[in-house]
Amino acid sequence: MSSVARVTTITVRSDTSFEDAIRSGIERASQTLRHISGAWVKDQTVTIEEGKITGWQVVIEVTFVLE
Amino acid sequence: MSSVARVTTITVRSDTSFEDAIRSGIERASQTLRHISGAWVKDQTVTIEEGKITGWQVVIEVTFVLE
Amino acid sequence: MSSVARVTTITVRSDTSFEDAIRSGIERASQTLRHISGAWVKDQTVTIEEGKITGWQVVIEVTFVLE
Amino acid sequence: MSSVARVTTITVRSDTSFEDAIRSGIERASQTLRHISGAWVKDQTVTIEEGKITGWQVVIEVTFVLE
Amino acid sequence: MSSVARVTTITVRSDTSFEDAIRSGIERASQTLRHISGAWVKDQTVTIEEGKITGWQVVIEVTFVLE
Amino acid sequence: MSSVARVTTITVRSDTSFEDAIRSGIERASQTLRHISGAWVKDQTVTIEEGKITGWQVVIEVTFVLE
Amino acid sequence: MSSVARVTTITVRSDTSFEDAIRSGIERASQTLRHISGAWVKDQTVTIEEGKITGWQVVIEVTFVLE
Amino acid sequence: MSSVARVTTITVRSDTSFEDAIRSGIERASQTLRHISGAWVKDQTVTIEEGKITGWQVVIEVTFVLE
Amino acid sequence: MSSVARVTTITVRSDTSFEDAIRSGIERASQTLRHISGAWVKDQTVTIEEGKITGWQVVIEVTFVLE
Amino acid sequence: MSSVARVTTITVRSDTSFEDAIRSGIERASQTLRHISGAWVKDQTVTIEEGKITGWQVVIEVTFVLE
Amino acid sequence: MSSVARVTTITVRSDTSFEDAIRSGIERASQTLRHISGAWVKDQTVTIEEGKITGWQVVIEVTFVLE
Amino acid sequence: MSSVARVTTITVRSDTSFEDAIRSGIERASQTLRHISGAWVKDQTVTIEEGKITGWQVVIEVTFVLE
Repeated sequence: MSSVARVTTITVRSDTSFEDAIRSGIERASQTLRHISGAWVKDQTVTIEEGKITGWQVVIEVTFVLE
Repeated sequence: MSSVARVTTITVRSDTSFEDAIRSGIERASQTLRHISGAWVKDQTVTIEEGKITGWQVVIEVTFVLE
Repeated sequence: MSSVARVTTITVRSDTSFEDAIRSGIERASQTLRHISGAWVKDQTVTIEEGKITGWQVVIEVTFVLE
Repeated sequence: MSSVARVTTITVRSDTSFEDAIRSGIERASQTLRHISGAWVKDQTVTIEEGKITGWQVVIEVTFVLE
Repeated sequence: MSSVARVTTITVRSDTSFEDAIRSGIERASQTLRHISGAWVKDQTVTIEEGKITGWQVVIEVTFVLE
Repeated sequence: MSSVARVTTITVRSDTSFEDAIRSGIERASQTLRHISGAWVKDQTVTIEEGKITGWQVVIEVTFVLE
Repeated sequence: MSSVARVTTITVRSDTSFEDAIRSGIERASQTLRHISGAWVKDQTVTIEEGKITGWQVVIEVTFVLE
Repeated sequence: MSSVARVTTITVRSDTSFEDAIRSGIERASQTLRHISGAWVKDQTVTIEEGKITGWQVVIEVTFVLE
Repeated sequence: MSSVARVTTITVRSDTSFEDAIRSGIERASQTLRHISGAWVKDQTVTIEEGKITGWQVVIEVTFVLE
Repeated sequence: MSSVARVTTITVRSDTSFEDAIRSGIERASQTLRHISGAWVKDQTVTIEEGKITGWQVVIEVTFVLE
Repeated sequence: MSSVARVTTITVRSDTSFEDAIRSGIERASQTLRHISGAWVKDQTVTIEEGKITGWQVVIEVTFVLE
Repeated sequence: MSSVARVTTITVRSDTSFEDAIRSGIERASQTLRHISGAWVKDQTVTIEEGKITGWQVVIEVTFVLE
């Protein structure tokens, strides 16, 4: 018997931190994808305006099991 | 507040140039995906027959914002 | 004229071998995706319990042509 | 005169954050390794159950000086 | 019309966290560079003394728009 | 005798093509840097609005000889 | 609560196949390491003598949980 | 005294398995190259038609000693 | 039955564009190699003299089928 | 309190050896940059004329502490 | 029959050269590891004080055969 | 007008040093290839017997101009 999962890449931006961005991304992904089992942080960037960090952005690869 | 985007990978082949391939890929992707914000050129290859370039092919990662 | 394909990443685990995992993944993907043309083996891992290999797992990138 | 250090890779999972995972990993490594001088964060992943993040996991490469 | 930006690499160490290091680096960079638009986290390391983490260090690539 | 050059990274966006972006970047860099000898194309991206490509952007590493 | 695992790299050569090499490596590692949970195939090479493949060699990264 | 070897890259496709593809590639390479000492598996892909795997393809880097 | 191809790397410089460089490279390679089936663009660089781009250079990996 | 350093990339060519090139590069960089703390060797190449090595060239990333 | 080797990573600093650092590292590793068969140079860095190179440092991956 | 060069990979082992290995490799390559213009050091390894370094080995990519 074999089990199959799919991997999808999402980009999320938070006002407060990288970890909040990851949480938001998982929450948003859970609305359309079932059986999410994990995520890998591929990239971390910040956006900056007038010397202040205005966004904490992550690119994550989300894995979800196919039924 | 957070914003979320997805990234999808497509491969496109054009008869004429890499840039035409990119344009075709974006056009095709726009038929099914809304709010495309950008694309990254991951790979560029040419296919060749009898010493002539018959295809200009790109692999691009397309980002589109989720509503 | 141009042709367009999409690439999707899947993770598959088999009890018996990497090649069985690849076959299972393609079979499973074929249920929902039409016109699959190929796949690239991105990663190979094994899961182990009490000194025995219990799973042969592959991550593959599957390409399918859009109509 | 020369100085020599070894590098070892560990994987740590925390319930609360990546930084807590790093701290736990260093603490655990200090029980068996002396003269740890630093660590490099190689990978960051989260494990997810029923739409919630249940683990913050890091892979770190720990350097320790040989006496 | 075209717009041009430069990318510069900096290394920053904080006593408290990676995110504090990023904030410090952006703040320091803002003293000499105008129009910083973003930064990419390239590497994350910790320095350790007597089993305690004494520094959270990041390497970031800072982008700033040329006037 | 030895010769020394520096390498700097710039990001340039053009309305029309990647090659125009490269030309603009070199032209802009030549205003402040002397003795530029070459450039390597590190990344190519497009920005998209309402299904149209609105920017062709390159990241290039520019080498210039120090006198 | 946190859990910690170590990762070690081994190279194994088999006379018959890559999968036999992986099995042999796990078996050998199990003699000295407890609680092995998985392994990642990092590299695959063959050694050749007089036009015949005489060895199937893998480099694998083995993960084992610390008690 | 020094010894010198060359490395050449070949792509081979088999109907049955990756290992058969490697064997075929070494066999074919042996017809024109002498003193092949080894090969590294750089990439593994499958070609697919109507949901069936029709080809197992490897890219290998073959090393052969120069006399 | 198996099919075998070789991959060779060439560097080509054109006065006018990257695509012209690719075309020239394929044309030149076709004089000595038969059955070229494709090429992958590995690197793109420009050479610059007195602030002007004087060469568009590509490194390409050319695949040709062995009879 | 935090400390900040910058990283700059230079290319140096020596007539005699890679290590002489590194020494020359550091010496040259010290004329304009203060508080250099280290350098990483990113690439090593040789230039050749009529079968003789005429230049030993390194690309190094130099780190210097900002006051 | 199969043969198994382990790979361990060490960092060594010499006052005089990279090659002296490699020699020192191998010598030091031989005190605790038997049957070392080779090493791969993964990274080369120099440490600098007041414009002088004070350390030549290498990261090497050492392979040793298990009995 | 365009110019074309080929790149070939060779592996060379010297008894004495990496730089001697590079020199030997270029010398050997010059016997069969004309117009060699440069080489890039891709990898550096040492072979070890009974705790002594018995070989300094480099993998280099040699570029030579086609007439």
